[in-house]
Amino acid sequence: MTLEEYTAAQQRRVDQALDHWVPPESEDPATIHRAMRYSLFAGGKRLRPLLAIAAADAVSDAPDGIENAACSLELIHTYSLIHDDLPALDNDDLRRGRPTCHKVFGDAIAILAGDALLTLAFEVLSKLDICADRRVRLVNELATASGTVGGMIGGQVNDLEGQGKAPTAELLESIHRAKTGALLRASVRIGAIYAGADGDQLVALSRFGEHIGLAFQIVDDVLDVEQPSEALGKTAGKDAQQQKITFPAVYGIARSREMAEHDRVEAHRALDVFGDRALRLREIADYIVRRNT
Amino acid sequence: MTLEEYTAAQQRRVDQALDHWVPPESEDPATIHRAMRYSLFAGGKRLRPLLAIAAADAVSDAPDGIENAACSLELIHTYSLIHDDLPALDNDDLRRGRPTCHKVFGDAIAILAGDALLTLAFEVLSKLDICADRRVRLVNELATASGTVGGMIGGQVNDLEGQGKAPTAELLESIHRAKTGALLRASVRIGAIYAGADGDQLVALSRFGEHIGLAFQIVDDVLDVEQPSEALGKTAGKDAQQQKITFPAVYGIARSREMAEHDRVEAHRALDVFGDRALRLREIADYIVRRNT
Repeated sequence: MTLEEYTAAQQRRVDQALDHWVPPESEDPATIHRAMRYSLFAGGKRLRPLLAIAAADAVSDAPDGIENAACSLELIHTYSLIHDDLPALDNDDLRRGRPTCHKVFGDAIAILAGDALLTLAFEVLSKLDICADRRVRLVNELATASGTVGGMIGGQVNDLEGQGKAPTAELLESIHRAKTGALLRASVRIGAIYAGADGDQLVALSRFGEHIGLAFQIVDDVLDVEQPSEALGKTAGKDAQQQKITFPAVYGIARSREMAEHDRVEAHRALDVFGDRALRLREIADYIVRRNT
Repeated sequence: MTLEEYTAAQQRRVDQALDHWVPPESEDPATIHRAMRYSLFAGGKRLRPLLAIAAADAVSDAPDGIENAACSLELIHTYSLIHDDLPALDNDDLRRGRPTCHKVFGDAIAILAGDALLTLAFEVLSKLDICADRRVRLVNELATASGTVGGMIGGQVNDLEGQGKAPTAELLESIHRAKTGALLRASVRIGAIYAGADGDQLVALSRFGEHIGLAFQIVDDVLDVEQPSEALGKTAGKDAQQQKITFPAVYGIARSREMAEHDRVEAHRALDVFGDRALRLREIADYIVRRNT
């Protein structure tokens, strides 16, 4: 199976699971369920669930129900996009090629839909068909990766407050390690914990997660400069316009690309202990660095 | 010990626990931690933690660490107030007698502070010093009570969309059962589960929680009509101004008061199986109906 085929198969699996966990549009109150589904089923790449599944596969053959644990990551990711796009934050009209949630449903429902997706992520984890000890570890992983201290929200705050500040290498790395890196790292760790990884495996996969997290953000920053909005499905060139601290702003495009390549190689190296079992994770690392959108 | 003394002692206990769980203002990013603490330590009554502790006391003598589980309820309650007060929702400038979070920190930080408190609630539950099985049950309780289907967010959406609609008894009850009732019921249940309640105890305490949930909201609606802003610490008369569906709007003040008294009596009745152990819960039910603010 090619990576494209593997990815498509996992996306279908994750989308079916999401459809199971998110209340139907007919369920009262319908508006909020429509808003949640509008943003969830907007053609996202499902990168975080894919990482969780591939990490679980590296540890143990296709563990049953991993797609449900993987859903929690997409729920968190989607909530963060909805809130990030609000007028009070990035004020973006376009996401995944469609009008953003608040443009369609209004700010109030967009705020509540984000809250609901965030809450649902933990409900899903609490209901997984694995032992309570593992479920509670997953709750802890997801909450800390999404939180304020080294987690996603902390990164968003630093990103907001960094606008217009002198772009230093330290500030850049601390923003991106937290803002996107923490959840990508948690994606790999959640898959690994679900599959019963031992301590050494978890350390190796965490290192892998950190490197692809940085590589992902570097490439994201570069694409924001190089690609038009139509290709990205979101407004391009926003970083420069908002004076955000980005890799191209600090290092320039060429050096940024070299750094992403370095992280790709280090990510591969972290997987050595898994041998052939980590084939998909290696391919995903390559895809993250070489993608055009 | 009088109820006032018991309440003051539990408030101190809960505030100390909250201070332990919420990162200090000095921790990076400082702004979000300041905003979280500003709204958390604004002199709230800590009613939900108090209910959790009193319910745990009814089941088992003062279980160790219950104040930590109780914190999760105050974190959720405070996040919901911050988001509710935003210009896109209720647009309120005053809360607990002080400017609302977004008036002090801006809308972006207020949105993220709410997200962070919500996320932290689940982190706290994942770290409790009780068996994993009970921790995961608490996560499930809190997530479902806060969610869209019969939970807090669902109630907020129905409340928002009910503005200006014909105030029917059915719509009123469905809004309030969810908007405030679900979390009050969960407060009692979380205390009970923490303390190891058996099935019968949990059923009885859930019934108690439902009745005090309705009584609380009825009295809240009545006070919004009768009391000035200074007494409430929030803008009074907003319900009528926003054409909200309230108990006084549907039943009038006198009948609303009678209904609250009926729920108080039913709440007491639900506690019969606990005998003297439920003294504090009975006193709290009385306080909820007879309070002036």
